[in-house]
Amino acid sequence: MIDITKNIATAPRRTKASVIRELLKITNKPGVISFAGGLPDPEHFPYDFVTDSVKEIMARKGRVALQYGPTDGLPELKEEFLKFLKKHEGIEAKPENVIVTTASQQALDMVGRLFIDASDPVLVEKPSYMGGLQVFKSYGADFVGVKLEEDGVSVTELEERLSWLKSQDEHYKFVYLVPDFQNPSGVTLSEEKRLKVIELSEKYDVAIIEDSPYRQIRFEGKAPKMLYKLDQETRRTSNIISLFTFSKTFAPGLRLGVILAHPHIVRKMEILKQSLDLCSSSLNQLIAADFLRNGVFEAHVEKVKKAYKAKKDAMVGALEKYMPEGVTWTKPEGGLFLWVRLPEGMSADDMFHDAIKENVAYVIGSAFHCDGSGKNTMRLNFSYPTLDEIDEGIKRLATTVKKRLAAAK
Amino acid sequence: MIDITKNIATAPRRTKASVIRELLKITNKPGVISFAGGLPDPEHFPYDFVTDSVKEIMARKGRVALQYGPTDGLPELKEEFLKFLKKHEGIEAKPENVIVTTASQQALDMVGRLFIDASDPVLVEKPSYMGGLQVFKSYGADFVGVKLEEDGVSVTELEERLSWLKSQDEHYKFVYLVPDFQNPSGVTLSEEKRLKVIELSEKYDVAIIEDSPYRQIRFEGKAPKMLYKLDQETRRTSNIISLFTFSKTFAPGLRLGVILAHPHIVRKMEILKQSLDLCSSSLNQLIAADFLRNGVFEAHVEKVKKAYKAKKDAMVGALEKYMPEGVTWTKPEGGLFLWVRLPEGMSADDMFHDAIKENVAYVIGSAFHCDGSGKNTMRLNFSYPTLDEIDEGIKRLATTVKKRLAAAK
Repeated sequence: MIDITKNIATAPRRTKASVIRELLKITNKPGVISFAGGLPDPEHFPYDFVTDSVKEIMARKGRVALQYGPTDGLPELKEEFLKFLKKHEGIEAKPENVIVTTASQQALDMVGRLFIDASDPVLVEKPSYMGGLQVFKSYGADFVGVKLEEDGVSVTELEERLSWLKSQDEHYKFVYLVPDFQNPSGVTLSEEKRLKVIELSEKYDVAIIEDSPYRQIRFEGKAPKMLYKLDQETRRTSNIISLFTFSKTFAPGLRLGVILAHPHIVRKMEILKQSLDLCSSSLNQLIAADFLRNGVFEAHVEKVKKAYKAKKDAMVGALEKYMPEGVTWTKPEGGLFLWVRLPEGMSADDMFHDAIKENVAYVIGSAFHCDGSGKNTMRLNFSYPTLDEIDEGIKRLATTVKKRLAAAK
Repeated sequence: MIDITKNIATAPRRTKASVIRELLKITNKPGVISFAGGLPDPEHFPYDFVTDSVKEIMARKGRVALQYGPTDGLPELKEEFLKFLKKHEGIEAKPENVIVTTASQQALDMVGRLFIDASDPVLVEKPSYMGGLQVFKSYGADFVGVKLEEDGVSVTELEERLSWLKSQDEHYKFVYLVPDFQNPSGVTLSEEKRLKVIELSEKYDVAIIEDSPYRQIRFEGKAPKMLYKLDQETRRTSNIISLFTFSKTFAPGLRLGVILAHPHIVRKMEILKQSLDLCSSSLNQLIAADFLRNGVFEAHVEKVKKAYKAKKDAMVGALEKYMPEGVTWTKPEGGLFLWVRLPEGMSADDMFHDAIKENVAYVIGSAFHCDGSGKNTMRLNFSYPTLDEIDEGIKRLATTVKKRLAAAK
């Protein structure tokens, strides 16, 4: 057999297995309550809607649904998505501003592929979404981490980094942000800081990736405007590239997302996508278009938000009830995750196998840090487990923490 | 706005828009009979099957269908695919030998990504499948073309090239072949040559990509065994990586394919796919599993083969009836395409706009040649047009050819 180690290219050697996907294999152990995944609650998938929608599609649009489609997406879905943008985000956009993707992970791959040459600096939040870090790394990104604060990325530190990179003539191309209920931390970037980010984008001639998979799942508080919208209202840099997905508002099983950007960027993305997978599933695009039509989306998201709020409240309540002093956590106003900080010096990495012994799982926070820091942090998912599992699981996690604290004394 | 020309990376600068996808925009002109696409005939898509299958899936497996799935594919589909391999190809394989992809184009991207560093030589048939050339080029492949003969790639020339590359210590990693009813030419690699290819694979320590999207659409003649199977029976090099798709046997709108390879390769592919799109659509995978189950696949493919044979016969008949002397064509025993050769010195590239004026379209053969040669060739698709369109379209094409021949006198 060919010697694979010798024969593979540079990119796959840089591509590491996803810590989450590998962890999930361990946490599938029976009896384990897992806060490690990032799965939507299947209790709320719109099963009957899908059945009815497919029946209707096969009857009326079967020839479109089962055939190849345009690389940039079916007009049916683009049209509904543009209406959604207008209605929910006040964003005016045209078909040439959007391209349909095989969900957000493909969008991240396309961003990486479009911009990154090996050793190019890429600015990311610390912590940041692991799937983004993984794919950017595969293109050889040299990460520049920027501290995350309670109201989102530190714009002071962001400017320092950009200014330094510019002074060094470095090929920085974009800043990667998850502004709404960030994965992993659950924090949201304030509108004031958003305006500053746009200002920096203009000043330093850098694209901003607004990765916003959870934005529609806001169950409390007031939403700041999207970066894309704020840019339209203020500086009109056209530097914002916004990523949307149907995975949290509808179903991940469809593998559908959308990139919203300037037509020049979209056209480049279209050419890339020709060689990545030609087009995303036409059948699934028509189902998603149907979902956006006639208020199905709104009614569904209301149900999901209500359920996730109850779960978030349950998790925060359980943390307050069971966790020892010195442990803190975020209280997200939406999304799927919250972020726990253990006392300084304690390692969530080391504690992971203890937790599995107690039959509870989480994702180690260090996996979300481009520099491997954040050892005393962990990400907890509240969307997937049931209310009872949340209470019991947090109790087990608190027990694990207390045991380690006692052992350390 | 950021200066995109300045800011993009090397790979997208190497990625050219697909000639076919761009041509299709022109050929959509009303009144044009197009032999340019590569679309399956929508007349034969199994619409009712999809409706019934989705209804059943939502009732029984909805939670799997709408959720994220394992990166390497749902066990349900893998299991049915392995049975299909055994039954139709006599291939024994295990779940760790296969990974589900977002159709063959993604498989080609994964192959490119796994093996190619910029300037690595990649051996391809001349002509070869354009989607393969496009994606390999995006990784910086330095193509080494090998002549295609009536019974497939020239193994003599292939050995010469491999021997030369080896002597130069070049990093050649794989040979890309479409052995069955090749796209674009329609020719099939003989079993004798397949055995020689495997011998060369062992001798020169090189992987063989067996891209076989049309193999199941054989409407006459006897199928040589798959390269993968022949390797299992003879040298057991494990160097064969075989690509399958549901696009021709079922429906392209599902975007599903499978890679069959040694587990070491599959594992690498799995890690790549984590960053490409996490997983392919679970819903569509369950539909495809259902399609393979209980003979639905076999009955459907029989219907498709019968229809395509009639269309191929019609096209060959029309070519015989209308084409002037000096024009030749292949007579494929399966697949979707045949290949026309104009008299030496005539250019199908130059003739393209004349053809559009006569309201008929094809794909220029040079687009399939890694070195831009093959100016006097063209690819014709017979699966999509109706029998009447085939007759009328070939008549128009013959008129175009005759006019040019007359003008050249």
